[in-house]
Formats: sequence, C-alpha cells, structure tokens
Amino acid sequence: MTAAPNLVTLAQKTRTSARSLALEPIARRNEALESIANALLSHADEIVAANQADCAAAVEDQISSALYARLKLDRTKLNGAIAGVRDVVKLADPIGELQIHRELDTGLVMKRVSCPMGVLGVIFEARPDAVMQISSLAIKSGNGLILKGGKEAVRSCMALVKAIHAGLEAVGLDASLVQLLTTREETFELLKLDTYVDLIIPRGSNSFVQFVQNNTRIPVLGHADGICHLYVDKAADFVKAIPIVIDSKTQYPAACNAIETLLVHESIAATFLPQVAIALKECCVELRGDEATCKILSNATAATDEDWVTEYGELILSIRIIRNVDEAIEHITRYGSRHTEAIVTEDAQTAAQFLAEVDAAGVYQNCSTRFADGFRYGFGAEVGISTQKMPPRGPVGLEGLVTYKYQMVGNGHIAATYVGDQAKPFTHRDLD
Amino acid sequence: MTAAPNLVTLAQKTRTSARSLALEPIARRNEALESIANALLSHADEIVAANQADCAAAVEDQISSALYARLKLDRTKLNGAIAGVRDVVKLADPIGELQIHRELDTGLVMKRVSCPMGVLGVIFEARPDAVMQISSLAIKSGNGLILKGGKEAVRSCMALVKAIHAGLEAVGLDASLVQLLTTREETFELLKLDTYVDLIIPRGSNSFVQFVQNNTRIPVLGHADGICHLYVDKAADFVKAIPIVIDSKTQYPAACNAIETLLVHESIAATFLPQVAIALKECCVELRGDEATCKILSNATAATDEDWVTEYGELILSIRIIRNVDEAIEHITRYGSRHTEAIVTEDAQTAAQFLAEVDAAGVYQNCSTRFADGFRYGFGAEVGISTQKMPPRGPVGLEGLVTYKYQMVGNGHIAATYVGDQAKPFTHRDLD
Repeated sequence: MTAAPNLVTLAQKTRTSARSLALEPIARRNEALESIANALLSHADEIVAANQADCAAAVEDQISSALYARLKLDRTKLNGAIAGVRDVVKLADPIGELQIHRELDTGLVMKRVSCPMGVLGVIFEARPDAVMQISSLAIKSGNGLILKGGKEAVRSCMALVKAIHAGLEAVGLDASLVQLLTTREETFELLKLDTYVDLIIPRGSNSFVQFVQNNTRIPVLGHADGICHLYVDKAADFVKAIPIVIDSKTQYPAACNAIETLLVHESIAATFLPQVAIALKECCVELRGDEATCKILSNATAATDEDWVTEYGELILSIRIIRNVDEAIEHITRYGSRHTEAIVTEDAQTAAQFLAEVDAAGVYQNCSTRFADGFRYGFGAEVGISTQKMPPRGPVGLEGLVTYKYQMVGNGHIAATYVGDQAKPFTHRDLD
Repeated sequence: MTAAPNLVTLAQKTRTSARSLALEPIARRNEALESIANALLSHADEIVAANQADCAAAVEDQISSALYARLKLDRTKLNGAIAGVRDVVKLADPIGELQIHRELDTGLVMKRVSCPMGVLGVIFEARPDAVMQISSLAIKSGNGLILKGGKEAVRSCMALVKAIHAGLEAVGLDASLVQLLTTREETFELLKLDTYVDLIIPRGSNSFVQFVQNNTRIPVLGHADGICHLYVDKAADFVKAIPIVIDSKTQYPAACNAIETLLVHESIAATFLPQVAIALKECCVELRGDEATCKILSNATAATDEDWVTEYGELILSIRIIRNVDEAIEHITRYGSRHTEAIVTEDAQTAAQFLAEVDAAGVYQNCSTRFADGFRYGFGAEVGISTQKMPPRGPVGLEGLVTYKYQMVGNGHIAATYVGDQAKPFTHRDLD
C-alpha cells in the first residue's frame, strides 16, 4: 500500500465533488445508485474473495464469534445489500423539499428548501455491508462521504469502495465522492476536519461514540447509551406482557433498543413474575432482582445500584417491583437513557400518562421496544439512532443527512422600509 | 443578598416544574403569559427604578454608549416588551403537533409528536428586555428556564424575574420555572449541568459564544460569526443595488446579518463603484479595497487578507472586484460564515446558480441581508440565529425550543413476527 494521502487534500476533493453532486437532479443521483448496484454485482467475486481473506485473518487473530458473524460477507449477504442499494432508489428525494413558501411583502418571497449537509464522516466497526448502505444514503441525499471501517474489514471495504468508484465513474461522477480511510491515525485526523466535514456518524460501542463526541467540534449524530425499560402495569394483560418481555430482551440482546430492566407493579408481581421467569429461563436469561423480586423468584440474584445503570447488551435482566406508574416514571427518568421506554397496560389513562410524561425518543404501549428502528418506522433506511434530545431524535432516516436553507428573492427591498415610525408592515402570507 | 443557592438543587427544581408545565394545555400556558404581562405592568415602577439604579452604576463605571443604550429600560421600552409577551400568546402552540401518524401494521400505530426540550439555559448580555422575551418563549413552549444576565443589568433582571414569578404564581404555576443566576461563577456551573439542562442559548459576542461551545457538553444554539457578502453582478440594476448596499451595511452595522464585504463584477466596477462610494461616504463608511478597487476609488485604503475574514461590526466595508459569479461563490465559500449571502442581478440564470450553489443559511437575490431575522421571516419571535449547518439553521423561532418523540401503541406486537423466513410485512400506511 502506498502512503496515506494527505487527508486535508482528500477532504477538499470530496467537498468539491459533493458541491457538484448537490446540484444533480434526483434522476442522476438514482442513476448513480443503479450503477453502483450493478458495479457491486459485477465485482462480486472480488468482494467475496477479499472478505474471505479478512475472515481468514480474523480467525487467526481469534476474534469473537459475534464479531466474525458481522464481518462475514458471503454471496447471499452481498446480494441482500445490493438489493438494499436499489431500495434506496425508491425512497423519496430528500433534497429540494419546499418546507416554507412565504410572501414577506409584495415582491419579497422566501422559500425554505431542504439541501444536503455537504460531507459526512462515517466511522464504523467490522461490518462491511455498512459501506454499501451508507454510500447509497449519502449519494441519494447529495452528500460526499469519508468512510473509516474497522481494521478487520479493511480488504472487504477496499474491494467494496473500488466497486462503488467504478459505479460512480460509469455515470460520469467523481470517484472522490466516496473516500475510504484505513488507518486509526486517519480517524483522529478526520475528527479535526471541521472545515471540510459537516457531520460525523460513529457506529460502534458506547464508549467509542462518547470518545468521538468528546474529541471533535464537528456535530456528531449518534447514541451513547441504550438503557431501555419495560413497565408491566397492574392492569397488564399477561398474554401480551410475557411475549413482549421476551421479545424486548432476547430478540437481539446486543441491540440498543433491547431492555435492560423490567419494572413490575407490586400488585401483580407475585403472579406475573413466576410466569415470566419460566419463559425467561427457557431463553437462558440471567435475572437480577431487588429485594422484593428475590423473595418471589428464587433463581434471581440480588441486584446492586450498578445494575440500574448498566446496559448489559446480553442475556441479563434486572427486575424491580414498584408501587405505581409514577414510581415507574421516576425510575425511568433517573436511570433511562431517553432511548425507548414501554408500558404494558390495558388502562388507557395510565398508558396516556406514561406516553405523555416519559421523556424518551420512543414511548410505547403494549409492544416491544425492538420496534425502535428506521426500517420498522417506515423510513426506508436508517443512518442511526439518536439519543440526543434536539432533532433528529430516535431512528434517523435520510432526513438526518439533509439540512435546509432560506432563499429570498426581492426587487430591491431594503430593511429600512420596515423600521421606525413610518414602518411598512409585512404581509407574511403563506403561498401555495 | 444571601448566598447563591446550590445550583444543582435549583436546576432539579426547574426540571421538575418544567415536567409539569409540559403537560399543561395551551390555554393554561397562554393564561400564564397574560398573567406575566399583567404582573410586569403592575411592577413597572419597581422595574424602571431598578433599571435606573443599574444605569446610574453603569455611568459611574463609564460603560460605552452602545452598551448603555441596550441596558436602558424606560417605560416606553418596557411597554413594548410587555406587548411582545402578549404577542407570543398569539403564536401557534409549538407542542403536540402531530408530525407523523403511521400504521406500521394492523393495530400498531406510531405518532411523532412535538414536545418541549425540558430546561433551557440562556446566557445574555446587558439587555434586560431579553428576560421578558425569552421567558415568554420558554413558557409558551413548555420549557423551564435558567437565565444568566449581564452583571450591569443585575438589578433590572431581578426586578423583572420577581414580576414574572408573581405572574406565574397568580395562575398557580411554580415560580421555579424561571430562575435567575447573577454571578459569573454560576455561569460556569450552569455549563456543567448536562443532566438537567437540555439546551444552552448564549447571546453575546462571537468570542463568548465560542467560549460556551468549547466549554459544555450541552447542545448550544448560537452563531459564532456573521461574515456576510453582497455580490453586485454585471447584470445588476444600480437603482436597486445602491440602496441594498447601503441598507445591508449601515442599517445596523453591529448586527450579524450586516455585510462586511462587497463583491463587484469587473465589467461594471468602473461605473458602479464611484456611484456607490458617494452613497457610502454620506453614511461615513470607511472603504478598504483590493488593488483593482483602489485604482477606481481614491478614498479606499488597501485591504489585507485579514479584511476578508473580519466581522467589523461597524461602518467599515471591504470591496473586491471579481471576474464572474463563480469567483464570487468561491470567495464566499472560502471566507463566508454561512450566515446570509446576497446577489444583486437581473439575470435569472446567474441568480439561480447563486441561490443553489452558495452554502449559507440565507441566500438572497435583490434584497438586503438585513432581512435575516425571525420577526421579518414571520416566525413571530426569535430565540437566535444559528450558523450551524444542522437544523435549526438561520433565524430560529419557537421550533428551536421543541423536539419530538415517537409514541407507539400496539396490542401485544413483538418484533420477532417481522423477522426471518416467515416475516410478516409492515403495512407502513400513513393515517389522516
């Protein structure tokens, strides 16, 4: 491999290409996506071979089986990802949306129009299919992209980006729209490029996301924690509650929208907990309970204060018995990460209180927390889940990759006309 | 004065009150605003007297006349600010707006609903009327508020907040919804309260805003710079161009939306510049030009590279002659702060290129940059102007003080149903 090119030069080139892409009509951007999908298909052998080399090296390095599963990109997974690129073609154009159209005065008209962010910096872990997903979302939204993948996937990522470059060039677009960084040093450099990069999207562990947030002046779209709760109310229907507990905890325990803590109303604890414990035991979930829980469940160990603030990410569930919905909300306010919080109840008033008062990106009644996901919300594709409070919040689709600008056209209008004793009033009339 | 109360306790109280306020219907929040307006009116003598004491102390401290003008709150200004509080009553409710209403599957319905941010921390300078404006916007949007005013205005701010507390209490709301900090030490403490404060809005000098951005993990809504340009194209109508230059530069030179640099097309420079220079001279504007400009204008001094990156904030204008619209866009891309950029031209194609390609919160044709303002945009009231690229961008009204959450109601729905070989498809049908 040759020496890493100067990162500023690289970012400048991406920025320039992105400025041109931003002006391309949606037909051209979709054509580019189709071309990329075709190029990925025609480079499939090369991509799969590169991934096999990554996988062989990973086995030698004795990486975990979970990491290996994410790294592996066989023909089936590749075909699925290529289909995903074509799915992005079908999404509505996020650019050029007229959000406000207003006459301020006769002949002075303002439009607020959505437009691309500019250049995105995306740092991800071992999962090479992220390259295809993120590249297609970036091109669709008219943005340039600087990617940094995990070192385990370096050969796969290089083969994928080579194919993406071929796809871009086949329709006359600049290959520098999508750049790949391969070294850890470049990650640090990337975080300093606040003149050239408009948004950083880190995809990885909580501590990694926090590291990124603390080490860049570029806005960061990412979630730091996913401590989600499920509250089973006294008016819960157990027939719904038990499958929801199981799904929320075990359907994919490593996901940020899986629950870590089960809150149970005291008046149903003695009947509900033994039933749910059987189902949880079948799924090999380790239970940690407060004192009251341990009295009911002999197989639960005592939870400590640490348990309420821990995102296990595995088959462990902490359980606490509480007195009412207010106490449940209080617990969630204190320990939750404002990601996704759910209640199981048939009582409409209690549910309404929970949905109104709990401060989280997602507040659910009678369904699994695992629905907190861009695909499931119908956003078509997801750039990530945000636990920041300012929008974009929760699962973020293409809208997280665009911003807007105010365009105003006048006919010699000056502000002085609208100031002082003789001030002309504004009409402020919405058009269309 | 008693010792400053513990800031964490204070912020916790504000947070708790804000959680209650968030649940109040719009009628109650508007009632609170009317009550605050009445209380300000009945406390008017006390407020004006407190302000006179601040002004007397300021004269003793020999503060600048500009600062004095901002500090002064006479009866007329106070009545105007009280009318402003009543104006906020008329604005649409920013809370509870149904942004998305979607069926994911039969019986599984998602709503995206706007909701308050929580607690706002607002740090402002000597201008006491900001207390009334910001408090009314915070209450309207269901947020708690921690204010820190400039030390010159401490007596005025205390009198104003006392009246606001009376107004809140008169309708049975908690006075701790609006808190006032008075010492510089408390400002530093406020920036550390990321558990209790959801958004910091600094209003002050550029360097102060940057200081805040660099010293808090709380999201900051503020603009760091306002280096705006006006480009007079070869196809400009001078009858429009000259008043636009004068208005953009001199109508309020200290404003962030005033221009610092005039770009002029080379083919009209020899005729346009002498004409605009006469008008600028009448307004006492000092001119600094590039070499070509200085050849045409004998009263312009030579501009240095420093001039293109300087926000003068006073009656100084830098002038550069450029070859075409591309060079104008290039200059703006390099030196602009992405605030507001304008072109004067009768050529529709050139205008379209400028509006599409210039990356700024505001891009204008044939009107003054001074229109970049929340009131003028018809937002009713403004919390500030944002030069960050992610939304909210540009002048920000009430929408900058709210976020949203996803509420989902199911009937026992679990994610496992929608995964794997037997996966049930989502319906993703928008309702209403």
